[in-house]
Amino acid sequence: MKQPSLGVCYYPEHWQESCWEEDARRMSAMGIRYVRIGEFAWSRIEPRSGQFEWEWLDKAIATLASEGLSIILGTPTACPPKWLVEQHPEILAVDENGRARGFGSRRHYCFSSPVYRRESSRIVTAMARRYGSHAAITAWQTDNEYGCHDTVVSYSAAAVAAFRHWLQDKYGAVERLNSAWGNVFWSMEYGGFDEVELPVATVTEANPAHRLDFQRFSSEQVAAFNKEQVEILRQEAAAADLVHNYMGCSTDFDHFHVGADLDVASWDSYPLGFLEESSADEARKAHYRQQGDPDFTAFHHDLYRAVGKGRWWVMEQQPGPVNWAPSNAAPLPGLVRLWALEAFAHGAELVSFFRWRQAPFAQEQNHAGVLLPNSEEAPAAQELRQTFEIINELDWQPAEKASVALLFSYEAKWLIDIQPQAESFCALSQALAYYSELRRLGVDIDIVSPDANLDGYSVVVAPCLPILPEQLVESLKNSDAIVLFGPRAGSKTADYQIPEQLPPGDLQQLLELQVTHVDSIHSGVSLAMAGGDTDDSVHTWLEHVAGNIDARVSTDSGAGVWYQQDRVHYLTACVSSSLLGKILRAVLQQAQVSVDDMSSGVRVRRRGHLCFAFNYSCEERPTPCGDADLLLGGRTMLPAEVAVWQTQKR
Amino acid sequence: MKQPSLGVCYYPEHWQESCWEEDARRMSAMGIRYVRIGEFAWSRIEPRSGQFEWEWLDKAIATLASEGLSIILGTPTACPPKWLVEQHPEILAVDENGRARGFGSRRHYCFSSPVYRRESSRIVTAMARRYGSHAAITAWQTDNEYGCHDTVVSYSAAAVAAFRHWLQDKYGAVERLNSAWGNVFWSMEYGGFDEVELPVATVTEANPAHRLDFQRFSSEQVAAFNKEQVEILRQEAAAADLVHNYMGCSTDFDHFHVGADLDVASWDSYPLGFLEESSADEARKAHYRQQGDPDFTAFHHDLYRAVGKGRWWVMEQQPGPVNWAPSNAAPLPGLVRLWALEAFAHGAELVSFFRWRQAPFAQEQNHAGVLLPNSEEAPAAQELRQTFEIINELDWQPAEKASVALLFSYEAKWLIDIQPQAESFCALSQALAYYSELRRLGVDIDIVSPDANLDGYSVVVAPCLPILPEQLVESLKNSDAIVLFGPRAGSKTADYQIPEQLPPGDLQQLLELQVTHVDSIHSGVSLAMAGGDTDDSVHTWLEHVAGNIDARVSTDSGAGVWYQQDRVHYLTACVSSSLLGKILRAVLQQAQVSVDDMSSGVRVRRRGHLCFAFNYSCEERPTPCGDADLLLGGRTMLPAEVAVWQTQKR
Amino acid sequence: MKQPSLGVCYYPEHWQESCWEEDARRMSAMGIRYVRIGEFAWSRIEPRSGQFEWEWLDKAIATLASEGLSIILGTPTACPPKWLVEQHPEILAVDENGRARGFGSRRHYCFSSPVYRRESSRIVTAMARRYGSHAAITAWQTDNEYGCHDTVVSYSAAAVAAFRHWLQDKYGAVERLNSAWGNVFWSMEYGGFDEVELPVATVTEANPAHRLDFQRFSSEQVAAFNKEQVEILRQEAAAADLVHNYMGCSTDFDHFHVGADLDVASWDSYPLGFLEESSADEARKAHYRQQGDPDFTAFHHDLYRAVGKGRWWVMEQQPGPVNWAPSNAAPLPGLVRLWALEAFAHGAELVSFFRWRQAPFAQEQNHAGVLLPNSEEAPAAQELRQTFEIINELDWQPAEKASVALLFSYEAKWLIDIQPQAESFCALSQALAYYSELRRLGVDIDIVSPDANLDGYSVVVAPCLPILPEQLVESLKNSDAIVLFGPRAGSKTADYQIPEQLPPGDLQQLLELQVTHVDSIHSGVSLAMAGGDTDDSVHTWLEHVAGNIDARVSTDSGAGVWYQQDRVHYLTACVSSSLLGKILRAVLQQAQVSVDDMSSGVRVRRRGHLCFAFNYSCEERPTPCGDADLLLGGRTMLPAEVAVWQTQKR
Repeated sequence: MKQPSLGVCYYPEHWQESCWEEDARRMSAMGIRYVRIGEFAWSRIEPRSGQFEWEWLDKAIATLASEGLSIILGTPTACPPKWLVEQHPEILAVDENGRARGFGSRRHYCFSSPVYRRESSRIVTAMARRYGSHAAITAWQTDNEYGCHDTVVSYSAAAVAAFRHWLQDKYGAVERLNSAWGNVFWSMEYGGFDEVELPVATVTEANPAHRLDFQRFSSEQVAAFNKEQVEILRQEAAAADLVHNYMGCSTDFDHFHVGADLDVASWDSYPLGFLEESSADEARKAHYRQQGDPDFTAFHHDLYRAVGKGRWWVMEQQPGPVNWAPSNAAPLPGLVRLWALEAFAHGAELVSFFRWRQAPFAQEQNHAGVLLPNSEEAPAAQELRQTFEIINELDWQPAEKASVALLFSYEAKWLIDIQPQAESFCALSQALAYYSELRRLGVDIDIVSPDANLDGYSVVVAPCLPILPEQLVESLKNSDAIVLFGPRAGSKTADYQIPEQLPPGDLQQLLELQVTHVDSIHSGVSLAMAGGDTDDSVHTWLEHVAGNIDARVSTDSGAGVWYQQDRVHYLTACVSSSLLGKILRAVLQQAQVSVDDMSSGVRVRRRGHLCFAFNYSCEERPTPCGDADLLLGGRTMLPAEVAVWQTQKR
Repeated sequence: MKQPSLGVCYYPEHWQESCWEEDARRMSAMGIRYVRIGEFAWSRIEPRSGQFEWEWLDKAIATLASEGLSIILGTPTACPPKWLVEQHPEILAVDENGRARGFGSRRHYCFSSPVYRRESSRIVTAMARRYGSHAAITAWQTDNEYGCHDTVVSYSAAAVAAFRHWLQDKYGAVERLNSAWGNVFWSMEYGGFDEVELPVATVTEANPAHRLDFQRFSSEQVAAFNKEQVEILRQEAAAADLVHNYMGCSTDFDHFHVGADLDVASWDSYPLGFLEESSADEARKAHYRQQGDPDFTAFHHDLYRAVGKGRWWVMEQQPGPVNWAPSNAAPLPGLVRLWALEAFAHGAELVSFFRWRQAPFAQEQNHAGVLLPNSEEAPAAQELRQTFEIINELDWQPAEKASVALLFSYEAKWLIDIQPQAESFCALSQALAYYSELRRLGVDIDIVSPDANLDGYSVVVAPCLPILPEQLVESLKNSDAIVLFGPRAGSKTADYQIPEQLPPGDLQQLLELQVTHVDSIHSGVSLAMAGGDTDDSVHTWLEHVAGNIDARVSTDSGAGVWYQQDRVHYLTACVSSSLLGKILRAVLQQAQVSVDDMSSGVRVRRRGHLCFAFNYSCEERPTPCGDADLLLGGRTMLPAEVAVWQTQKR
Repeated sequence: MKQPSLGVCYYPEHWQESCWEEDARRMSAMGIRYVRIGEFAWSRIEPRSGQFEWEWLDKAIATLASEGLSIILGTPTACPPKWLVEQHPEILAVDENGRARGFGSRRHYCFSSPVYRRESSRIVTAMARRYGSHAAITAWQTDNEYGCHDTVVSYSAAAVAAFRHWLQDKYGAVERLNSAWGNVFWSMEYGGFDEVELPVATVTEANPAHRLDFQRFSSEQVAAFNKEQVEILRQEAAAADLVHNYMGCSTDFDHFHVGADLDVASWDSYPLGFLEESSADEARKAHYRQQGDPDFTAFHHDLYRAVGKGRWWVMEQQPGPVNWAPSNAAPLPGLVRLWALEAFAHGAELVSFFRWRQAPFAQEQNHAGVLLPNSEEAPAAQELRQTFEIINELDWQPAEKASVALLFSYEAKWLIDIQPQAESFCALSQALAYYSELRRLGVDIDIVSPDANLDGYSVVVAPCLPILPEQLVESLKNSDAIVLFGPRAGSKTADYQIPEQLPPGDLQQLLELQVTHVDSIHSGVSLAMAGGDTDDSVHTWLEHVAGNIDARVSTDSGAGVWYQQDRVHYLTACVSSSLLGKILRAVLQQAQVSVDDMSSGVRVRRRGHLCFAFNYSCEERPTPCGDADLLLGGRTMLPAEVAVWQTQKR
């Protein structure tokens, strides 16, 4: 196995040419093998319309390559320059208030703009022709963080036109659209596709089917935009890996869909910023403020391993404080090393730090780098060097398939957000809750798309899957896996309607129960369980079901919460961490997957024959290595420490 | 007395024609006598401009009528169809940001649009001509929930034009407007009515007199719109009752004003949704989450009995979870029956459930019905059947006039909202607070308009009446009633100015005191009373008065809170529940109205010779029936239970 | 020394002419010597374009003058009348959503509008020519409360044009702007000044340098607008003092800059409203709700003494409840007197009450006056009379220079707000925190501009100074003062970049340390100190520094917090009140400034040989007068009481 690598994000255009050589030398000396460049440089590559300036970039590439660095070259389409906006203001996205998004930051373009699609192809073609066959450029990154800053959806005239075509393609006749959406309700029927508006500025909520289709359309516009760049790059840079850097915590488009056209998935990992912006409670934010959530990052690692069909990188790794969250903590010493090793434990080929040197100007001047603005080393540098040493000391094998698959659906996230019915219900939070409990039980997890082949998994967990993919029920019927569905499974058809047989829809083929109504529970209220621990409770959501299965656990007012029929388990409610842990333990035990309870803040992950342990807590913890010989670390771990040992079994 | 009836809201256009007959049969078998239809069906009645399709509606009406159901037919003007919006985009209301409200939900029209007024008359005339003399159609509902989703006010060009005319009619000369509004202040004087803008987008607050007049205008536009439909229906459907279904918790237009033109008032009662969206504290929301507030619904019953001049219905009764609140609880078993019986106890002629069958599509698919989407019975069905049995077992008399009148003014709500002076001061909340304490003392209450004739009441309570109606003081002078005014009474003239003699204005003829200034109290702060219980306190608002009356109760810093001069009581402050209860008890005792302290969560209401008791609490409670023989229920009531006994006295 | 005076704000146009004489007589009898008029009267001075009506104003002035009152005449430009807006809608400011701000309140004009500049000059010229040489008019107030209601910034077409010119003047060539702003970042480079837009409606944050320059531009537009009026008034009213009334708690433009062109600074002091709208915690708001914050008002007094170059007034003093805060408390009896005396203690020449008589109409009808709307005395009247007596009893000397200078920079406030990096970091709050601790230590403070000459100060405190003024470091090198810098000092260049030598920039010439990175701390989290009291802690912000100085205080994880090198102290963090008090005490002691610990809620201030003490608390407190003989008050002070004694030393 090729061992994992370290990388860095670099902006030669931000610095004097005279620095480049020294920068390249220092990168190389630090153990860095990959350097990403170019993704925001349009105004330097083409300072005026049609006037290209390649020389500086030629030289920057040559300088980096001369130190043996592999280059990931970004297409610069996230930042159309001012001259293009002046020529074609219609390329700007339009916000929900109907206002064109202003020039002066980034991602201001509309995915549906035919003019911008043409310009995107033009600049990508120019770059690809110039650098497509450069030996040092081993990968191309398309654009940058699609969707970041709420940029998937645009309410432009171009979007309206494209949406109408998309609907016509999907439904053929407007009567079918009216029927699928239930437009007879409130006399919302359309006489033609050209009458359909975007679901915005309505007096009260727009039709949820209308909203879901618009989100699907918007997601597909991102994929189509990306694919246009991919097709050019396949032509001109056939040998290179194609990759996009997805932003963490971003769900407005279907990453599986974009990922299908690329070779590698990568994501931008900012654990402290993500925790600070998350909906975690204040105590958790305070406790983990310098470490980040112990499961959130791992969840994304496992997600992008799926999006990348096994091949995935961290394209941007937080190296110190960032600049964009409400508060921006400094990582605890050791965390930068820990973050990199956790990524490798989950199978990452590359962890690339953002960014080489802190910029002293513009929006991100408070964002740390590996170097300080004056080129001295920032705290990250030393940890990066340590990580490089550890990489070299260990014998790396590929990440194996896990025993447990967790289904995650982007569409589910959209669907629930459109009609949450309980304000705090969130499909992503549900997925994270199940994921986190599984991690506390010490198992490895594969996150998979709802359409994935589930063969070979001992356990399949679907925390939130309101629309059942067509083949899923058939596939589960023919499987031996133990299956657990969270509430709302099968509660909607693909047209955003209630299924004829009521929820959980076709799942009734596996589990004979029917949801008759839902008690959605005021935020902050918990319902106690009959005979349960006081920590076991139900919140947010409680379905009432009809059927002949006895509940394994019920609330103290008698509502069934956990149902099991042979291999299939169903939860009617959002349950507390304590109760979810017990249920998942039982499911794993039924599947004969072994369980290892983690101390608070400690997590493990296996990669091939190596087992990694991480201490995210603020205290010293025993290393959960049993009597194995340690390859790294000791029998206890201080905060931020990592231990590695060899394991024979999964 | 005709006994009260059950009804249901039905949407034949949502279902296959083949279902209609079976639906009608099941309704009838369940005890349902009224069915409301048609109010959102414009796009099916007139799918294209001028092209009417009556056949389906003819058949639906005939099918329902054939089962003996009486029909309430709605005019469909709450939902102008897309073809009309395409032809006349100027019918759309405009929001406070100056943006036309989008098609794709409902209530998108502007009350001031002359085009929409014409279209409204056209469709109502067409329907009225076709069905006006149909024997089974015993009532017509105008439009649907005027004002719901913040739709009373529109900032359209049509609204500006109409407002200018309205002002010209009211003031005659612009100098009189300038003087009434005090426009000399900040050089806001107008040179002509055509210079007056709507009070929106100003740098800081607009003139309160300007805002109040605009709210009055907007309210009158609703009434005028309704009246146009009424006049057509009076012509074409002379035998039918005319009714509108007001939305609960809606105060942006004067319901008394609209109600004056109709035969019956009805309202849409969603106790759990209203509690969840209310400003109640979290503990109360948690406690009553499956029952709703024990007084909020009753308050509306008593309010609409006044709006309907004695004749009133619940047009839409929540039958299970709704879909539109932040969380949407399932009612505790028994609550659907309890809600219906409480309405009847307050004198309702009809309680109609929304809706017959849960829709599996569009915006309200998570809103429960009497039937599930698959036509099986939802939990409400059984309770509806029980309610029908109880209706038949009891001997019904009309609701009598209560001893206690509580004045409620829509204008007061607007006036206070425009300049609350203490952020949490709300005229509706004040009214509810007094109402709730009176209910805890076991008395029946009539809510009356400020212009109502108060003859025959032993007690008159005016929780918040900043503008005193012209005849009120005279009328009270000649009355024997014990009168209690809350703070801010008489504090403004009809022109939104401070009266010359200072607050409480003309009330000084009854009570010799003068408000010199107000201590408005930071939210969450309470001031203790001199020598009072610790539960007795003052919050939000405390007037300082001059005069020769000694206060009956004062704060511990010596500010008078409760003043009495013979029959007239005045409170200078918002007082705690405990203190308000003591004051109201004294007022009732002075009036020789007998008091019966309710257990927590228990309420009573008398209708003729029947006394009803309701247990809204989460525990078993003694039935407050003394030694009376029970017609329904027992000596104790479980949660959600109702008891009925015969009473001789009020 | 001329003794201080009392004044009042009066609106003759609001009242019948028949009242004026009696009003003037009563003012005079109450001890009032100054009366401000005219600042909102444009629609009465010029009711239609070019049609002036001077007679009423002539008479009002004559009436007031005949009672010996000195008149402060306001230019009426804060309220352009409707006829002007009808003629020239382009004078309206535009809000951040791109919408023209509506007529109907005040301050609706755009400072950049050339049309409005012309109109402003026209009306000021007309007034100045008529009244410039009137003997009774001793001062002119320009406009009213520049910036109030968020009116400094406008996004109008006029603002874009003016901003482009401003940038061209500043940078000369667009390449220099691109370089200064770092526009290479995200391809934000401009091809010309005419391509620069305002920093609004961008997808994510706009360039901070762009935003800072726009705020500087907007601030300078205010100063330029003011200067145009000043130049006219200097011409026509050469003998009069020129003054502007700054609104308290207003920082969107540089008051020092505007003040440089005027003779006197004045401010509008509403202690209760400001506390209610502040970010103080709920307990503090509750505790001081009837007194106001004990330091906030004093801070402004000291600030405007600097803005006025020693000459300053309170133009509008709260006399009772105001109308514009969320809650509007009544001042505790005695506070009106206390507020006036505290202003005089800080050196005010004049305290003028807003307003004479409470208006019964329009926006401010709930704002108390010295008289009630019916002309009876409001509670303030008696306290005003008492204050007048005290003025006459004391022997007044000018305010002396204090030992302690506190640097306050408006630019710092803008800079931090643009990129706070820790959401609760606020330059004004930091300044207030240091000021408050100094007041608790009983010292007098001069607030000074960052450009001020610091000669003669024993202690210089700079709580938040990210951009170091050019001469500051040199000046401190040559000074004997003990200097304390708060965190972020010298962290940015004037171009909003990180300085080459890293923060604290040129301060490294005085203090050999370098900030490498910052731990910005989640709101509500405190970090304990090594060996400190439990009250000593760090919150919001903690810099990590490199250098050879040992920290005097560190966190328990070893981060240095308080560094000292000889005379220069530096704090790396936001520290708790307790810790800040200890540090400031040490700094004062090093400078041999004597310290006197104040009881909770008690404050002192010296003016010449008089020492004033104020009891802002809710309890009786000992008077901190030692054994001095009291000129006013006793050995203890009840809440709201003031004591005065003679002091020899500072």
